Amino acid sequence: MVASRWTAAPARTASPRRRGAVLERAILDATLDQLSTVGWSGLTMEGVAAGAQTGKAAVYRRWPSKEDLVVDALRSGLPRFDSMPDRGSVREDLLELCRKMRDAMFSRPGFALRAVLHECDTATAERFHEVICGGVVEPSVKLIREVLRRGIERGEVRSGGADAYVCDVIPAMFMYRSKVCGSEWRDEEFEGLVDQVMVPLLRP
Amino acid sequence: MVASRWTAAPARTASPRRRGAVLERAILDATLDQLSTVGWSGLTMEGVAAGAQTGKAAVYRRWPSKEDLVVDALRSGLPRFDSMPDRGSVREDLLELCRKMRDAMFSRPGFALRAVLHECDTATAERFHEVICGGVVEPSVKLIREVLRRGIERGEVRSGGADAYVCDVIPAMFMYRSKVCGSEWRDEEFEGLVDQVMVPLLRP
Repeated sequence: MVASRWTAAPARTASPRRRGAVLERAILDATLDQLSTVGWSGLTMEGVAAGAQTGKAAVYRRWPSKEDLVVDALRSGLPRFDSMPDRGSVREDLLELCRKMRDAMFSRPGFALRAVLHECDTATAERFHEVICGGVVEPSVKLIREVLRRGIERGEVRSGGADAYVCDVIPAMFMYRSKVCGSEWRDEEFEGLVDQVMVPLLRP
Repeated sequence: MVASRWTAAPARTASPRRRGAVLERAILDATLDQLSTVGWSGLTMEGVAAGAQTGKAAVYRRWPSKEDLVVDALRSGLPRFDSMPDRGSVREDLLELCRKMRDAMFSRPGFALRAVLHECDTATAERFHEVICGGVVEPSVKLIREVLRRGIERGEVRSGGADAYVCDVIPAMFMYRSKVCGSEWRDEEFEGLVDQVMVPLLRP
């Protein structure tokens, strides 16, 4: 049978060599593994290649430096902030968004990212800072704006309630309370933030 | 005349050796000078002593380490956040407070503090972080709370308008927009923050 010959073929001729996206994913996973075990200083291209069961050349061909590799590994691992299901209530949408932001911060790549920021020098930190902004902060602000606009359309939020400074309040409080107060953001704290600040700030 | 003999005495017997508070101030000033010229890494106890025209022992007697000395120099140089004159309007009071916070950030010790945070290792940075919290953030939050409570008494601010999360919004936005957006806080930006966020958040 032609069909069975075709489906069987890849298994018969498959070499252990992975290519393209599969190999790439294995290298990025190995990078996150290395970050959580030996940290930024301990991470080497050799170690990553060994972890991904490939050669050093396969790593260098895709990522010319340790920084490039780690930036991509972190970025590819962080949870996506693409869209927010509409719960019909700004309060519920914002609480859900807070939980998503916390999950990103406390995911494996989130932890790795913060560990790296503490460990590496200023110039390198600058690049990882971009990963936070581009991968977490900006997409969050975009989603917050979307949630607030939906609230304005429903008449639940005052006009002006999606202005630039308003959209920054939640990410600002996240950063501030994590840094200054060492807050880990339990669910009650989200409710405090949303009910003490966001709901009064947005009411028509 | 007894009186003239007493008043003349210190001038006659004064040595170039300064003591107590005067010498201390000279050492702290020399420390801020060193920070702005050679930075954290370049700063030495010898250099500070030379700058203050005193001996190294006079420095070490008061500050056992470079960290202790720099923490005190920064702390003593930062503008005080003791009280806020009551302008009779929460909006005006908050704008004035924002300007005071910016002045602290952009004062000579404020610049030195941020330069130091970029230059030194994590453990040392932790100590300077305390200077920011204890010297700028906490006193600011206390003043904000005072301003908001006065507003509540006047009926200008809703009850609940001085809750913990509300008092954190301005310092949080300061930190966030400086870090993420690289904002330098022009006066119009304060108006944006106060008019888009604080005024709607506080209205009864």
